[in-house]
Amino acid sequence: MYQHILVDRTDDTVRITMNRPSRRNALSADHLAELLDAFQQAGESDATGVVVGGAGPVFSAGHDFADVAARDQVGVRDLLRLCTEVMRTIQDIPQIVIARVHGLATAAGCQLVASCDLAVAARSAGFALPGGKGGWFCHTPAVPVARAVGRKRLMELALTGDPIDAATAADWGLVNRVVPDADLDAAVDELLRRATRGSRASKALGKRTLYAQLDRPEDDAYDIALDVMAEAAQLPGAKEGMAAFLEKRAPVWPD
Amino acid sequence: MYQHILVDRTDDTVRITMNRPSRRNALSADHLAELLDAFQQAGESDATGVVVGGAGPVFSAGHDFADVAARDQVGVRDLLRLCTEVMRTIQDIPQIVIARVHGLATAAGCQLVASCDLAVAARSAGFALPGGKGGWFCHTPAVPVARAVGRKRLMELALTGDPIDAATAADWGLVNRVVPDADLDAAVDELLRRATRGSRASKALGKRTLYAQLDRPEDDAYDIALDVMAEAAQLPGAKEGMAAFLEKRAPVWPD
Amino acid sequence: MYQHILVDRTDDTVRITMNRPSRRNALSADHLAELLDAFQQAGESDATGVVVGGAGPVFSAGHDFADVAARDQVGVRDLLRLCTEVMRTIQDIPQIVIARVHGLATAAGCQLVASCDLAVAARSAGFALPGGKGGWFCHTPAVPVARAVGRKRLMELALTGDPIDAATAADWGLVNRVVPDADLDAAVDELLRRATRGSRASKALGKRTLYAQLDRPEDDAYDIALDVMAEAAQLPGAKEGMAAFLEKRAPVWPD
Repeated sequence: MYQHILVDRTDDTVRITMNRPSRRNALSADHLAELLDAFQQAGESDATGVVVGGAGPVFSAGHDFADVAARDQVGVRDLLRLCTEVMRTIQDIPQIVIARVHGLATAAGCQLVASCDLAVAARSAGFALPGGKGGWFCHTPAVPVARAVGRKRLMELALTGDPIDAATAADWGLVNRVVPDADLDAAVDELLRRATRGSRASKALGKRTLYAQLDRPEDDAYDIALDVMAEAAQLPGAKEGMAAFLEKRAPVWPD
Repeated sequence: MYQHILVDRTDDTVRITMNRPSRRNALSADHLAELLDAFQQAGESDATGVVVGGAGPVFSAGHDFADVAARDQVGVRDLLRLCTEVMRTIQDIPQIVIARVHGLATAAGCQLVASCDLAVAARSAGFALPGGKGGWFCHTPAVPVARAVGRKRLMELALTGDPIDAATAADWGLVNRVVPDADLDAAVDELLRRATRGSRASKALGKRTLYAQLDRPEDDAYDIALDVMAEAAQLPGAKEGMAAFLEKRAPVWPD
Repeated sequence: MYQHILVDRTDDTVRITMNRPSRRNALSADHLAELLDAFQQAGESDATGVVVGGAGPVFSAGHDFADVAARDQVGVRDLLRLCTEVMRTIQDIPQIVIARVHGLATAAGCQLVASCDLAVAARSAGFALPGGKGGWFCHTPAVPVARAVGRKRLMELALTGDPIDAATAADWGLVNRVVPDADLDAAVDELLRRATRGSRASKALGKRTLYAQLDRPEDDAYDIALDVMAEAAQLPGAKEGMAAFLEKRAPVWPD
């Protein structure tokens, strides 16, 4: 069904693997369209979590220049719209999406890591916004990266184009943790398990509201979050969670 | 006068202590109403600083489920409005407010720490947004926490619900420093002393303007800060500070 | 031509040195006007980078109280507008601007560091927003500092007025790196070289777009960045960069 990616479901987790190792998992329009479809399908499924990773030596090298170079301005805009839609879909679906970063994540590949809810990196991973070195520029990849790391660090990444190592990425807040390469899958699964347990409806509403309130003046953020939270207290999951707590018993999640 | 809190004034500092240790200082409506009143009273006083802490083994466990579970949607909204008003009042009053965190600060308790101007934690303190584990979700607590820590870290806190230790909280910028448990009071007093010395009117205007300019595009922030700063240069405190500096003498603050 | 600053051009780099050591490089109106002119001239030149540093024991002590104290509210506003224009010009010009911080950078001096695209500090440098100690307040310096460091750290800087050391500034994201004092010039040049290599037009558009998309909700930021990036793919530099990559040869930048 898919040419460029592998999709696998185990228990409550959908695993999406970029699988163009000979092209360093570059994000051609075809590849992006498959990723978009896979995230949308996962979003409509009853899975609770999604892991996105890559096969071969790198996580993803970003846009595929062979694809970009052939396009005029309208064509590039269409490609970037598709890419941005993938990133938004990751944040829009109710599942918790975690990036499994085992190698270099550059340009739109780094954007993908920054756009996931959570990210775990192997010690040998690296991160870069190299567009500034190559005559184009990582304008859109810098959007979610700017929202994960500080301003001076964004400037360094985007202006120098040079990679940072995984430990630096964790220190700057671009990934949640760094683990020895051999422990990557276990660490991804452990963090995803903790992020997905409990009421599925509660997590989904929580995730959506977090993204809605970010990057806004605090008062506007409260206006958004307060109404949601009042409504959420009436959800069966919330009712059950509070009742279980008050009755000192384990909760039985209704959804 | 108060049932759930202790309020004590020593020199220029108001000390507010949440005092429901048997309920882990849970923030029932009654408790919140008393906190609101205490912060408002402090705000109208001539004190320069406020310390907020908790009695018993935890700082605060957040909302009181016994209170929440009994309420319908309108009732929960009223409760959350009251809670948000406490948080806003902390930022609105002219005094510098510092959190003294000696144990676990969870959910609205963690929100309280994030909402204070400054925070000092004992090494044994912990911080969590556990709502995502329990069927509800820490929608409003995540608002000020998001504005203190990075995005990926917010996601980890809010989605896993698991606590971070005090050293991690300092590393992420949720608290200003971590000290051995035995040094907590001294460290709180020392930081508060440094944050409150000088002209009271100048600090009050400074605090208000900092909150007004945050979370906005830089140009908008400059528009806010520039007018205030031009006006502030004419305040007696500013005139005296500059005159003292230029005359190489100690300033005598007029207010 | 200039009384308060030195301007020197070597290869592709303009070096601007604040040169009022006896006044600790305080930013009087005359000094600011010269800085503004120098940044504007650099902006219109074909240089690719600008280094801003200071002569004497400190980087810059901020506003010159002798200048401020003599002004009424309108006069102070004019002074602050001029200062803000310097900061905006640093971000508006196409060159990459890097701060070379060898000593204390306080108040508007700290604002200058925060406003540069990149910053390298000597180990003996320090950073402070001392206005809160002196009866005025660092209202406008806090604007770019807030956008470089976290909220609790901003509050500590602005409310206590006490300096942080260079290592703390790097940890908080106020500067990109700290180096032994003897290595400062080499580290500045090395980072600037990496930040300026490649296509000049691409870097200039990249820098402008980064500042345009910061501090905004992510969707608005994407709207800004996406159109620019589609257009940028048609620039001669981008075309050449992609062609060189696909043809496995070194690029020849057209500008």
